[in-house]
Order: sequence, then C-alpha cells, then structure tokens
Amino acid sequence: MSMLQGIAASQGIAIGKAHKIEDRKLTVTRRSIEDPAGEIGRFHNAIQDSLKELQQIFRKAKQELGDEEAQIFEAHMLVLQDPELAQGVEEKIKLELINAEAALDEISNQYIAMFEAMDNEYMKERAADIRDVSQRVLAHLLGVGYQSASFHEPVVIVANDLTPSDTAQLDKQYVLGFVTDIGGRTSHSAIMARTMEIPAVVGLKHVSVEIQDGDLVVLDGSEGKVIINPSSADLQAYVKRREEFLLQKQELLQLVNEPSITQDGRRVELAANIGTPQDLPGVIQNGAEGIGLFRTEFLYMNRSALPDEEEQFQAYKEAASGMNGKPVIIRTLDIGGDKELPYLNLEKEMNPFLGYRAIRLCLDQQDLFKIQLRAILRASKYGKIKIMYPMISTVQEVRQANSILDEVKQELAAKQIPFDPSIEVGIMVEIPASAMIADILAKEVDFFSIGTNDLIQYTMACDRMNEKISYLYQPYHPAILRLIKQVIDAAHRENKWAGMCGEMAGDPIAAPILLGLGLDEFSMSPSSILQIRKFVKGVKYEDMKQLALEALGLGTQEEIKALVQQRMRLEA
Amino acid sequence: MSMLQGIAASQGIAIGKAHKIEDRKLTVTRRSIEDPAGEIGRFHNAIQDSLKELQQIFRKAKQELGDEEAQIFEAHMLVLQDPELAQGVEEKIKLELINAEAALDEISNQYIAMFEAMDNEYMKERAADIRDVSQRVLAHLLGVGYQSASFHEPVVIVANDLTPSDTAQLDKQYVLGFVTDIGGRTSHSAIMARTMEIPAVVGLKHVSVEIQDGDLVVLDGSEGKVIINPSSADLQAYVKRREEFLLQKQELLQLVNEPSITQDGRRVELAANIGTPQDLPGVIQNGAEGIGLFRTEFLYMNRSALPDEEEQFQAYKEAASGMNGKPVIIRTLDIGGDKELPYLNLEKEMNPFLGYRAIRLCLDQQDLFKIQLRAILRASKYGKIKIMYPMISTVQEVRQANSILDEVKQELAAKQIPFDPSIEVGIMVEIPASAMIADILAKEVDFFSIGTNDLIQYTMACDRMNEKISYLYQPYHPAILRLIKQVIDAAHRENKWAGMCGEMAGDPIAAPILLGLGLDEFSMSPSSILQIRKFVKGVKYEDMKQLALEALGLGTQEEIKALVQQRMRLEA
Repeated sequence: MSMLQGIAASQGIAIGKAHKIEDRKLTVTRRSIEDPAGEIGRFHNAIQDSLKELQQIFRKAKQELGDEEAQIFEAHMLVLQDPELAQGVEEKIKLELINAEAALDEISNQYIAMFEAMDNEYMKERAADIRDVSQRVLAHLLGVGYQSASFHEPVVIVANDLTPSDTAQLDKQYVLGFVTDIGGRTSHSAIMARTMEIPAVVGLKHVSVEIQDGDLVVLDGSEGKVIINPSSADLQAYVKRREEFLLQKQELLQLVNEPSITQDGRRVELAANIGTPQDLPGVIQNGAEGIGLFRTEFLYMNRSALPDEEEQFQAYKEAASGMNGKPVIIRTLDIGGDKELPYLNLEKEMNPFLGYRAIRLCLDQQDLFKIQLRAILRASKYGKIKIMYPMISTVQEVRQANSILDEVKQELAAKQIPFDPSIEVGIMVEIPASAMIADILAKEVDFFSIGTNDLIQYTMACDRMNEKISYLYQPYHPAILRLIKQVIDAAHRENKWAGMCGEMAGDPIAAPILLGLGLDEFSMSPSSILQIRKFVKGVKYEDMKQLALEALGLGTQEEIKALVQQRMRLEA
Repeated sequence: MSMLQGIAASQGIAIGKAHKIEDRKLTVTRRSIEDPAGEIGRFHNAIQDSLKELQQIFRKAKQELGDEEAQIFEAHMLVLQDPELAQGVEEKIKLELINAEAALDEISNQYIAMFEAMDNEYMKERAADIRDVSQRVLAHLLGVGYQSASFHEPVVIVANDLTPSDTAQLDKQYVLGFVTDIGGRTSHSAIMARTMEIPAVVGLKHVSVEIQDGDLVVLDGSEGKVIINPSSADLQAYVKRREEFLLQKQELLQLVNEPSITQDGRRVELAANIGTPQDLPGVIQNGAEGIGLFRTEFLYMNRSALPDEEEQFQAYKEAASGMNGKPVIIRTLDIGGDKELPYLNLEKEMNPFLGYRAIRLCLDQQDLFKIQLRAILRASKYGKIKIMYPMISTVQEVRQANSILDEVKQELAAKQIPFDPSIEVGIMVEIPASAMIADILAKEVDFFSIGTNDLIQYTMACDRMNEKISYLYQPYHPAILRLIKQVIDAAHRENKWAGMCGEMAGDPIAAPILLGLGLDEFSMSPSSILQIRKFVKGVKYEDMKQLALEALGLGTQEEIKALVQQRMRLEA
C-alpha cells in the first residue's frame, strides 16, 4: 500500500480497479518515396478521417458537456483545416520525396516548437492543440487509430496526462474517476472532470508508473489523495467516506429552494459565477439566488474577431431572462493578462498581470467598450441586470466609465430603444489601491464585489500560477482579511452592499469569517452554493462576528486557519 | 521654432548648436571569395583592433565614470572573445566561400534575432551588446572605423540613439547635453548622463529628423523639453533659468555639512541609495547622513558565477569604513524579477514581478543567502552596518530569515570571527501585504524601509515599465499615502523608526507629505539629497503635518499633487 498526494481537481471519492491509458507513442520512420501524389492523397485521406472523428467528438462533447467545453474541438478542426499546415506538408513531400508521416511529423514539430517558444500561456495551449491534432492524423496515416482506450467495467483511469479529447470521450458509465501525473486545478481535463462530476486527482508526478493495471485504487478528489492497494481498514474508511459524500450531496439538494439565513436571522445572498448562459442549468439546480459574476470574456475568446452587439445582447438577454428576475451582474470585458485575444493584436507584456487589461483596455478602446455596454443595456429590459467594472484602481476610472455609460444610455434613449434606466453599477475591488480607498469609491458606485483571486495576488505580490511561490497565495493572510473588512465597512457606511466573487466566497474556511465581517453577497461556482447555504443556516451571525474579530487579531494565515477549523468543528 | 516633449533623463539646461550623430549604416555586400584563410585572417585582425579600441574605452570609462558604468565594455570584450561566435563566422567563410563581412553579418544577426526573441529584458540587452560589438568589428573590416563623431566646439548632441560606447566617449568639455529619439529614464545612456552631470532628454521620437545640424537648441533636462531655434524671448528665459540652475547648485553645495532639521526642530536623516562602494564619493560630496540602501545585486550581475564571501566582504567593508561610522543599510540579495542571473538557471516566469525573487529565493537557496549574511556580518565590525530583507510579505519570512542569521552568527562566534552582535535588522515594506500588517511586523524588526517603487507597482497592479499603463503608476494616489502612513504609525507605536528608499523619498512633491507623516529617514539618489535638505530646513514640521492631513483627505493623485504644489509655492 502506498499513498500519494496530488492536486485535488474534482471532488468525490472513487474506489476501483486501475485502468492505465498508456501514452500513445507513435513511431514515425522517414522513408523515401517515389509517388508524391500518392503520399499527398494518403495525407488528405487521413485529414478527412480525422475531421470526421473530431466532428463526432465535438457533437458528443456539446451534448454531454456543453458548448464551452466543446469549443476546444472546434479549434482542433480549424487546425486541421489550416491551409498553411497542409501546404507545408505537401511541399515537403514533393521536394524531399519523403513519406507523409515524416513530412507531417516534421512540419507539425516546427509549429509546436514555434508556439512553445513564444512563452505565452495562450500560445502554449495552441502548441498542445497542434500536437493533439497531428497525432490524430499520424495515427490514421499509420493505420493505428487514435481512440481512447475502451473498457466495459467501472475503472479508475490512470494516465500520464489526459488530452481534452481523451477526457471528453471518457464514458461516465464506467469511469469512476481519474488520476494523472501532470496537470493543475485549472487544466482542461480538471475543469471537464468537475463539469462531468467525476472525482479526479492530477499533478501526481509519477502515478502512472507507480500504479499497475488492476491495482485497487482509492481516489479522494476532495483532498487530492490517492491510495494504491489500501489496507482493509483504509478501504473500509473510504467506503464509508464515499457513502457520506454521496449522502451529503443528497442532503444538500434539499436546500435548493431554501433562503440563506443564519439562525439569528441574518440573510445573505448566495450567487453563482458563470461564463456563458449555457451554465444556467447548473446555476438553477444548485439554488443560486442570483448571478454574482457573469464573466463575459468567453464571448470574446476562441474566435477570430470581436463578437458584435447582437451576439452579446442575445447572451446577456438569455442570462437575464433565464434567471427570472433574480439579479445578474455582468462584468464588462476583463481581457488582457492571462486571457489574450489574438485579434486585438495586443503587445506582449513583461508582466501581463500588472498590465494593460480589463477597464484599462476598455477606457482606451472605447468603441469596443461601448458595443458591450449597449448590448448589456438592451438586455437589461429582460431581467435584473447590474453592470460591474473590473480592475478599478482610481476614482477617475469609475467616473470615466460611467460617463461612457451615460453616453450610451443617451444614444439608446434617443433611438427609443428600451433599457433599465435605474440599472445598478458597481465595481470589482480586486486591486489593493481600490480596497485602500473603498471609502472614497463607495460614494461613486452602487455596490462592490471583491475579487479575491486578483486581490490576493497583488496584495501578496504573488502570481498564483507560479508554482515556486504559490505558498504565498494566502487567502487568510491577515492583510487580506483586513482589506476585506475595510471594503465591507466602507460600503455599509454609504448604505451600499458588498459582495465577493473570487474563489474565497465558496471556501468553507473563509465563509465563517466573511459572514462575520458582514459580507452581503457570496458568489461562487454553482457546485459550492449548497454547501455554503448549509453552513449559513447552521450558525449564528453573532458568533461569526465574534470569530471574525478573533481572526483579525492573529498574525499569520496558519493561526487564522487553525482558529476557524477548530471553532467550526466545535460548532458542527 | 518648435517645442518637443520627451523624457527628462538628466537635469540641467543646455543651450547650443546642434550636432547630429548620424546612424552608422554599414552596408555589407556578400561576395564570393577564393582565399578563405585570408578572409579568416582579416576577420581576426578586425577582432584584435576592436579589442584594443574597447580596452581604451573601458579604461576611459572606468576612470571617468566608475567601475559600474565601465562594466558594459568588459561585457563587450567578452562577446568579442566568444569562441562560438568566431567559430561560426570562420565556418561560414570556409563552407560558403564568402567574405568575412557577410559571414559576420549573418552570424551576428542570427544571435541578435535569437536573443531578441527571448522576450526577456536581460536577453534583449545582450542582443544590443552583440549588435554594438559586431558593428564595431564590421567597421574595422570595412575600413571605416567605429568612432564617435568628434567636434571641437561646445555642442548639443542629437542622435537617434546613443550606445553606451557613444555616451562613454562623449567629451564632457564640448558636450553641453544630448537629445535622442529613443531611450527611457533608465536606459544606459540616461544613467550615464546623470553620472556625468550632462543635461539630457531622451525618448523624443523624431528629434533626430526634426533638428538640423547647426540649429540652435535649448534642452531642459529637468522638464524633458527641447526647443528648436527658440524665439529670442524664450532664449533669454532659458539663459536665465540656466543661470538659476547653476546658482542653485552652488547654493546647495553650502548645505553639505548641515544637519537636516526643520525650522521647528524636527531632525530627519537624509541618506543615499548606492549600488557599489564606487558610489561613495558622490554620497559624501552630497552630504548624505548615511546609506539607506546598498543594493547588493550589482555584485551578482554581469558575471558568470556567484561572488564568493571574500569578494562580498570586501565590498561591504569598503562601504562601512568609507562611511566613517554613519549607518550603512545593506539589503540582502533582491534578484529575480527584472534582474536575472543567468548562472542561477532560474525558470522563466510569466509574471516575474509577482514571482520567485529576493527573500523568496534566499529562503529557498539558503547556501547563497548564508554566504551573503556571513560577508555582511564580518563587515559589520568596520562600521555601522544594518541588514535589510527585501520583499517581505509574511511574519514567517522574517522569522525564518532571522533564524538563518542567528545560525550564521553562531558559526562566526564559534570560530571567533568578530562581528557586531547588536547589528540592527529591518525589512523593506514594498508589498501591500506587509504594509497592511506593519503593526504585526513592527514587533519583529528594528526598522522599516518603505520601498515605494514596488509598493506602488503592486498596490496599483501596474508594471511601471509598461508604457501603456504607466499613468497608473501614481506615487501620490491616496491608497499609497494611506499605506505609508500606516507603516510609519505602526513603527512609531513600537518605538521603531521608518525610512523610505524608493524614488519617492527624493521627490520634491512627496517630501512635504512624507515629512508631515513622520518619516524618519529619506534615502535617495545622492544627487537629490541637497535639494531635499534645503526643503527640510525651510519648513516647519507642524505645517507639513497639517499638509499631510489635508492631502490624506483627498480622493485622487491629481488633487493631492495640486494641493502640495500650491502650498509649497506659497511657502517658498
């Protein structure tokens, strides 16, 4: 028996036999050929076969996982149809008189090397796409196929890595969970696992070597633990834990339509973060009382040009009407930083997280901003939409954004296009500067929403994607809690409300403190809502106030975490 | 007459005739040759001639500008002696039977393209070095020489850009100042201009096209203004301003040995920031009361391996004894971020400013840290050295660093190596998190030094090197002033002192507020000290307290700046 610690990628417990998916190592031999036209024909057939395969995968993914997850396969099809790639391979076949496999291998490796050298997360993902696609074509050329392993009994999948195509093709009926050597919480396969509700642990380094086919594996996707051939005591413990997990999930479902009120009567709003209107079913199933963050970037990503007003309007309208009068907070474009849009031709930046992004870009490229504001305003007729500006750091930015909004309102009014004239406007508080002047900003806005992911990152001067220093990404650092308190107090002094839409809002350790600090709205991934609702309903606001006060007196994240853990265990 | 606005690179006013330095455009023609050995011989002769030239420039730079500025030419000599470069050129000559000029041009362009593609400031500078060096060798091959223009009357130099070799070779006797199209405040030529006390304006975009040889040029290096063929009224105004500037410089020199005391008796310490002990003459000439920041990175940069304990000890000792008992605060290694050390083989980071650097690296690579601490402790016997840790964001980091320091002290004590046992230990407060918990950190340290460059950068989420958003790098943003106040108050409540070693400490607009907030020590570039001393001696602490209070009540940088400007003009 041995125990491995990895990264908790998707919660739940799986117990079952290991089924290893070996890395496909396609061996390409370079051969001289005499019939280049024939080779080129073979190459095109392989492309057509791959396209058909991808079409199927795309349809399946769209059906089972939704539009957003399926987009990756659309991207793959685009890569396959890229004339430059095909031309390069054809020319190589003709000029060097070599076989299609070798020509494809060399050309695609050139592309991969080029994209990887770009040192840019977006481009690196493109390198991974090209690799996935060219391997698929190669497999067809070699006549070996490029299908995921199949199995007809429930198994725990073990792999070095799972490509998006691997993951999308996993048959939920038989896949109890998966574990991989590489990947992080935000890698494609981890995100898909959460959507598919398959327990998963990633980043285990050598798990694909340490586990043998048929080993009994226990996988704890909530703790990031994997036990290989557990002792019978461990096995029993995890069987029990698994039952509890499923039972709890059932229990939580009872809370879907309950209000979020503490035992002493303080009501808070538990809302959901979404990326596209396709996320609405999950939002409603999990009993969200609103949408606290509609990230509009997804409308702009994975495409070759800006979305027009109509397309945006439809998306915002769908969210607004789908929520049936519950609030929907639409965050204006937060692009730049790690989320690039190739068609905007933004310059490369040395520190993109400290750069030209979000409201900074929108105030500079006002045409783009106005189109979005117009689409949002038009959609505001169909529900309770609120507007939120990201990355605010000065009072002037708020005033400038609002004056552009007023312009757009006047234009709409002049054309008698209806919109909600009393639409609320708030800001993300995610830069230390805005938290420090929350009292000044509170006079300018209708609400605050604290964006903890960035706030922590900037306050700690720590890129949370950087593994070497990720230990400094400390949500419970006293500096963070003090800033949050400052923001909430400033809002309340001006009779405004303060919410939070960072990951911290759905974190069981942070929630007691946040509730105690007086946070009014908690916006999180839909899957966390019921758990937090259960917590809210089980405690007294006055106790949480006391707890928050104590926490704020401590000097380190560790002490604060220990205090909450100990206190909440006592209360539970 | 026309007026151009550029970047103020070196203060002072110059009035004189323009002398344009044209871009050397060396035209290389690719020729077939029959005697490769002869070409290789020519190539080696050109290298030898270039080396001799560089030796001379290096010696001149060392004498006139000091070791630090001269280092760049040592680097150039190393490039010239790089066997890989020479081998590449030789092989190309032999294989392709082409002339040395073409071979060198192609090979060096390959290197330049490679380094430039690396998207890393350090590597880009290497590309510039290779360009400078290979142009020099090319000039020798072409028989045209690679010397700076010479002139025998006082002129204002006008150029697209000045390379370090250009700048170092400027004859101070005849150069009244210089203006360039490109460059920023921190480019090599700007730094050299300040050291040489030559007025300069850079980043003027098209000045080298707009000015004709012989035009009368007025250059205001303090305001970043350039006037071409001024009106006679403007000319008179600038002649007067120039006299005032020189007069003021004279007056300031009277203050060298004066204490920095306000009219109502508050004494502050005006200290200097230095990079190497070679900066000491400037420190003493400008009447610094101590060294508030000894940046030790320069000991580690531009070399191929870590400096050993002895080399560091000598440098720290020289600073300590050179300051004759005045305090010398040595900041432990602040490497990473924009300052990379190739020999440490650090991984590339997506956001280096939010990454693995400074104390984070030192606590991880303790051997390196211990060597530095040992060198500092040994040097502490020779003066009043204090230790300062950079990039502190948690209490644990301070405790961990101090426990390593204790270890080193014990090792030294065991070997009976003398050191100052009561050496003071402080931290840089340059991350918002540490400013927010200054009250907690104040219990752990002897002093704070606020590093405003980084503090502003993180608090505003703004990379100040990024031109597109540099308007958000706001030293007088209310958030920054509030954080500074918090830090000073926290220090004083624990009877510790608080200083500042960012650029803000020497800024005439910030100084009144900082004095009013109770800052105890101001550390700045030596050339700013006398100006700030004059200011301190001219005001009342009580008035500045009042001014700071008013400033803290305002909502924007613009309002705060206007308040100080208006008030200080009234007081002057």
